[in-house]
Amino acid sequence: MRTLFGLLFIVSSAVASAQPLPSWNEGDAKARIVAFVQAVTDKKSKDYVSPAERIAVFDNDGTLWAEQPMYFQLLFALDRVKALASQHPEWKDKEPFASLLKADVKGALAGGEPAIFQIVMATHAGMTTDEFEKAVRDWITTAKHPKTGRRYTEMAYQPMLELLRFLRASGFKTFIVSGGGVDFMRVFAERVYGVPPEQVVGSSGKLKFELREGKPVLVKLPEIDFVDDKAGKPVGIQKHIGRRPVAAFGNSDGDLQMLQFTAAGAGQRLMLIVHHDDAEREFAYDRQSHIGTLDKAWDEGKAKKWIVVSMKSDWKRIFSFEGTKP
Amino acid sequence: MRTLFGLLFIVSSAVASAQPLPSWNEGDAKARIVAFVQAVTDKKSKDYVSPAERIAVFDNDGTLWAEQPMYFQLLFALDRVKALASQHPEWKDKEPFASLLKADVKGALAGGEPAIFQIVMATHAGMTTDEFEKAVRDWITTAKHPKTGRRYTEMAYQPMLELLRFLRASGFKTFIVSGGGVDFMRVFAERVYGVPPEQVVGSSGKLKFELREGKPVLVKLPEIDFVDDKAGKPVGIQKHIGRRPVAAFGNSDGDLQMLQFTAAGAGQRLMLIVHHDDAEREFAYDRQSHIGTLDKAWDEGKAKKWIVVSMKSDWKRIFSFEGTKP
Repeated sequence: MRTLFGLLFIVSSAVASAQPLPSWNEGDAKARIVAFVQAVTDKKSKDYVSPAERIAVFDNDGTLWAEQPMYFQLLFALDRVKALASQHPEWKDKEPFASLLKADVKGALAGGEPAIFQIVMATHAGMTTDEFEKAVRDWITTAKHPKTGRRYTEMAYQPMLELLRFLRASGFKTFIVSGGGVDFMRVFAERVYGVPPEQVVGSSGKLKFELREGKPVLVKLPEIDFVDDKAGKPVGIQKHIGRRPVAAFGNSDGDLQMLQFTAAGAGQRLMLIVHHDDAEREFAYDRQSHIGTLDKAWDEGKAKKWIVVSMKSDWKRIFSFEGTKP
Repeated sequence: MRTLFGLLFIVSSAVASAQPLPSWNEGDAKARIVAFVQAVTDKKSKDYVSPAERIAVFDNDGTLWAEQPMYFQLLFALDRVKALASQHPEWKDKEPFASLLKADVKGALAGGEPAIFQIVMATHAGMTTDEFEKAVRDWITTAKHPKTGRRYTEMAYQPMLELLRFLRASGFKTFIVSGGGVDFMRVFAERVYGVPPEQVVGSSGKLKFELREGKPVLVKLPEIDFVDDKAGKPVGIQKHIGRRPVAAFGNSDGDLQMLQFTAAGAGQRLMLIVHHDDAEREFAYDRQSHIGTLDKAWDEGKAKKWIVVSMKSDWKRIFSFEGTKP
């Protein structure tokens, strides 16, 4: 078998290296990514990393797909409130639902995190995992982004999709490690990112096993189990993956600890931050933004010479649909 | 690439099917396992399952390795108490530690679950994940089983190691889903079972991310995070894997819900229970045993025609060391 695997590896490498990262402009970011992958996959390199240890972790919102004007999962939750309103006549007089049902999103979210918590729990709990999956699937295949008119899955960044593929073709196992809900992301992560459900790490609510008419189901409870953000990200990595990544990709202060944890391992490491600086093709935001705040991680990234990607200058195109009509 | 993958698949299948499960006697159990694998991997079969969906979950204690005279992880904890005693002078007068240090295991465990909880927390928390991993690694490479005098990793069941390999060669992804501690099992699961850390699901304590002198570490806190047993097993599967297995392997009532959850999916499924009925080559215990109680799952398994393996009559040999001296 070894010969055949060897052959497979050579062919995959050849396919991958023929034209890696076509949507990336030639420059420092692309050159450093390619050099890192060559160093850790070359058996003669002092930085060689065995395939089993080639773990790469990606944040999702703002790193693999867009996160403006608000997290897509929150847009899903807002749509679900409307869809579920007929089953909840009490929402008519109860905030944050009352504002939402009058299409006053700003008013609904004025309640801050407690309001968001209520909206998320009302739309992400009290049902089985199968029912929730169906709700997400129905939404993600039909709902459109408010600015671009595209399906949300089309809002994935083409250069990052190429990076995922390049790493996998180089023997990496690619994981998502995101503050987003794990059950939400798993519905589309395999199709859109090529990341199977068992390689998605995210925030989660508690679950309860029940037999309903003899049929086993898992019920989503209105209780937070784990928040996979900030200092929670290395914890999520340990809980789920159980080894330290050699490459980590993020875009905000929520990714700082994951980047630090990755950087602290031995040997060569790849830490990369996506900087949203292209108001024309996407959005421009960093230190002052409430969503995807990039402040401390940016400073630390610059100080420690992590790769900071300028979406404006490092990426030839951001979305695969650019130049076409929705 | 498709052709090469196709070739690889044919070659693996050929290698695997040349002599699958050599330590299994010819009989109903082996025949049903082989028939199941053929059905779900044959593209022309109505029961065909795509490789991405070929998820197989294995309990560990009593299913992949022995669990008598007590769980090996508890034996590790008892040894650790002795190793750590010099740092804890107060243990001399404090139960359950005092009894343990006088080599009175029975007295120490007389305190029941609270005593075990204290022993586990004293030996599994208050250190970093790296420190804990080292402690397990040191122990597992030196400690010997009290009855056989073999290293604990030698106490893995040879027929189950072959089953793991057979399934992987047939395109399955094999996971451990065990009540044992996830950080404990990950230390040896890859080497012994060929199951990488990211495919080990188990019980866990809470973790805390800290920067110690600028270096990120994960500290194991003396607080339970998740118990991956009984109704917790389908929950652990959903949290970690995110899809329903098509094959599940267990040996006790702690595996019943995992087996039910697996059985409830569409299409052909494989549910298997290992019955410890060989006092001569291993141990004999079932309904009345405190460790690895097999009672309800046995009845349900027989009623639902799950495979119930008799270690005595279905397995040619149990341990790879049989017939040799330690």
